[in-house]
Parts: sequence; structure tokens; C-alpha cells
Amino acid sequence: MSGERPGNLAIRVVLVEPMYEGNVGSVCRAMKNFGFHELVLVNPCRMGDFAKAMASHAQDLLASARAVNTFEEAIEGADIVVGTTGKPGPSLKRLRRAPYFTPRQVRSMLEDKSGTIALVFGREDRGLLNEDIQRCDIVAYIPTSQEYPVMNLSHAVAVLLYELSGIKGGGFELASGDLMDLLYEQFEQLLENINYPVHKRNGAMSALRRVFGRAMMSEREYYTLMGILHDTGLALTRTGEDIDTSWVENN
Amino acid sequence: MSGERPGNLAIRVVLVEPMYEGNVGSVCRAMKNFGFHELVLVNPCRMGDFAKAMASHAQDLLASARAVNTFEEAIEGADIVVGTTGKPGPSLKRLRRAPYFTPRQVRSMLEDKSGTIALVFGREDRGLLNEDIQRCDIVAYIPTSQEYPVMNLSHAVAVLLYELSGIKGGGFELASGDLMDLLYEQFEQLLENINYPVHKRNGAMSALRRVFGRAMMSEREYYTLMGILHDTGLALTRTGEDIDTSWVENN
Repeated sequence: MSGERPGNLAIRVVLVEPMYEGNVGSVCRAMKNFGFHELVLVNPCRMGDFAKAMASHAQDLLASARAVNTFEEAIEGADIVVGTTGKPGPSLKRLRRAPYFTPRQVRSMLEDKSGTIALVFGREDRGLLNEDIQRCDIVAYIPTSQEYPVMNLSHAVAVLLYELSGIKGGGFELASGDLMDLLYEQFEQLLENINYPVHKRNGAMSALRRVFGRAMMSEREYYTLMGILHDTGLALTRTGEDIDTSWVENN
Repeated sequence: MSGERPGNLAIRVVLVEPMYEGNVGSVCRAMKNFGFHELVLVNPCRMGDFAKAMASHAQDLLASARAVNTFEEAIEGADIVVGTTGKPGPSLKRLRRAPYFTPRQVRSMLEDKSGTIALVFGREDRGLLNEDIQRCDIVAYIPTSQEYPVMNLSHAVAVLLYELSGIKGGGFELASGDLMDLLYEQFEQLLENINYPVHKRNGAMSALRRVFGRAMMSEREYYTLMGILHDTGLALTRTGEDIDTSWVENN
């Protein structure tokens, strides 16, 4: 939830380590074409005349783009982080076991929500790294030909923003990214408290992030869940350390 | 109907007088990304290394692109010509009095059809000329921000092909473009035969082209209509020259 704009959906475009200034300029143009204005660049290449030329009448957007050093900084304040991938390959699938969403599905998931969304696009050559993808709540892909699936960066941005253009925010206020972080901390604490096998914890946390990322909880739902976790924590404290956790191994 | 591929939809991309080789290369890449392969260029700029660089792994498509001298040649053999415009402005609207279709609407209109479709994109600076638009059966536009509505050429192609990718042709065989030309000749003849006011004929023919362009007639429907026109012609011949056409003026 972006408190300043209740009932609104703020959409931020994040380019992670873009390599070619022409692409960054083209992205600015596509953003302005579809009515988007907030661009954050993680460790971008140097911007020169060609970036300006490709931005054309969107040079204002290029000038106001914010450069940051890390992925973390780029998604700061975002309630939902939407990653993008050109090729939902088997390795990625194995890692995330996550469904990928088409741009149209992403639109329908975001419609009527209220909050700040970061749309994250990876490097021209490698896309988003697996560790970046892990930080995303949902992952979008654009269905392309198997013959040549890798799109130009600015084309991918244009297609996604085309789908999202004119999207209307609504009354469904997303639990903020900061709140969600507290939720995941609670879950980590829970795993600790129930002696959940250490080697399974990363996988479990990834799964929880994926599930709640896709779920796009409201604040109200969030507090319900936090209440349950809180009460669970209290109950565990009452039972002490001798709780039987052997069943976890079999799940 | 493209007789060689019954039940199939062949989609051709036509760029009219593209000015920048980088855009043409980018268009090739977007085409291959979405599984399209036939590119026709009307009076293109010179293609050099930058076009190849932007085409990336779609240089085969760039190499096989066909250059022609006129719009006419580019749409030869097409059953439906889909024009594109970035700005359905008032002057264009006045001229055509035509509705404009979003990429999604174009897709739904073409789905289940069988035939050859030409998707025509205009010059980077001016788009399609009014006389080109007049030759199109339907006109597509991509809804953009009023703040900056003019998209990069290759972005526009990417968005339209994104919508059309994976489209399935069907059993609905479109009356061919050649047949449709005969239909319009029949109508011109009819206007002549009924002494339709000369100064109104161009407008009337434009309206007929728009209506039948949008209608996307099957061959069967086409022959029914041609039969009616033929019988009307015969009936007019029987009544001779002294047919009363005064009512036409009032319509």
C-alpha cells in the first residue's frame, strides 16, 4: 500500500544493469507512450546522446530516471515485485516451482488493487539472475516463438506496459512490502520455533514467498494471518521446547 | 483466401518507406519473436550493419525481406489489409468515418479466418498517408497516452504481433482480395447505371470499402452479394436508361 495514494496503483519500471543506452532511451519512450513515468535503473550503462535520441519526446523521463546500486534499493517501497523472464526454462522452473504469468494475467491480478508495483526487467544478455527472481512476488513472461524467444528489452517493456496501460487501481489495499517482510520474519521465527529442518528452511521460505506473493493479500487479510502466527507463537511458548516436530520431516 | 493454404491464416508485415535501418532490424527481431516471417518493405532506406545488429538472431528474416516500389505491390495477394495509425485524429476520422480497432479487436476479427492478411505500418515521421489508409480494409490503433501517443515503429509492430501471436486460422475462407476488387467494380458500375451523383461516388465507394472490409466476407457470402448485383444489373438493363434516380440525391 502506498499510503500517499490510497485507491491508486503506482507502477514503477526497474531495469537491472541495462547494457545499451539505446534500449534505455527506447524504454523511456514506451513508458511515456503508455502513461508510465517512474523509472529506476540498477547500475546502468552510461547514458549519452543515443539514449536521448531513442527516448525522443520522453527525454524528461530519461532525465528523471533514478540510478541505484542494488536490486534491493530499486524495489524499496514496492508492495508487489513483478519479475520478468524471456524463457521460463526448466532450471528456473525447478528453482522456483512457480507458475509464470502472461502480461494479461498480470493485468488481471493487479486490477482493482491499491499499492506500488515494481516491474523488473533484467540485463539484455542474461535477463534476471535467479537470486533476483527469488525476490519477486510473481514472474511474468511474454509468450514467444520457440524459434527465437529472446526479445529486445524495450520491446518486452512495451508489450507489458501496453497490457497494463489504463489499468485502474481499486479499493483493495495491498499489504505493504514492509509489512510482508514482517510476515516472512514471523514465518522464519516459526520455522525456528518448531525446529523445522534447517536444510529445508530456504526452500520453505521461497515457497511461502511465492504463495503470498501470488495471493496479493490485503492489509486486513495480512493482520488476520499475523494474528494467527502471533497466537501460534504464544501457544508454542506455552508448550515449551519439547514440541514433537518429527512429522515435519515427512511432509 | 490463399488457395495454397486452406484453413490457414498467413500474416504479412508491410513497412511503408521505413526511414531508419535500426527500426527495420528491430521489426525483424519482433517478428521472429512472435513467429512471423514475411516482411515486405516499400521503398525502404538502405540496410546496413545497424539493421543487422538490431535484427540480432533474425537476420535471416532481414535478408529475406522483399523490397517493392509501391503500396500496391506490397498488398498484392492480400485478402484483408490492416492499416495502422498512431493517432486516430479528427481529420482522419472525418476522412474515413471509420472505427479504429485495438490490437485485441483485430485479433478477434481475424481468428478462425482463412486467408492472407497484410499488416501495414507507415513511415516513422508521418505514419500512413490518407491515401494508404483508404486502401485498407480495417485500421488498427494502439491506445496510448495523449501526453505522447507516437510510438517507435518497432514497438508498434511488437505490440500488434504480440496480440496476433499464436492466432489460429479457421474454416472461414475469406473472399480473396482479387474477388473483392471485382465486387467494387460491380458497385462502381451500379453507381454509373443508376446515375448516382458523380461528386458523391468517391465517398460512396469509400464507405462500401469500409463496410465490406470490416465485414470480412466469406466466399459464399461474396457470391451471394455478387449474384444480387448481377441480377440488379440485368433488371436495370431491362428498365433501360429512363430509370428514376431522383431519390438518390436525397439520401
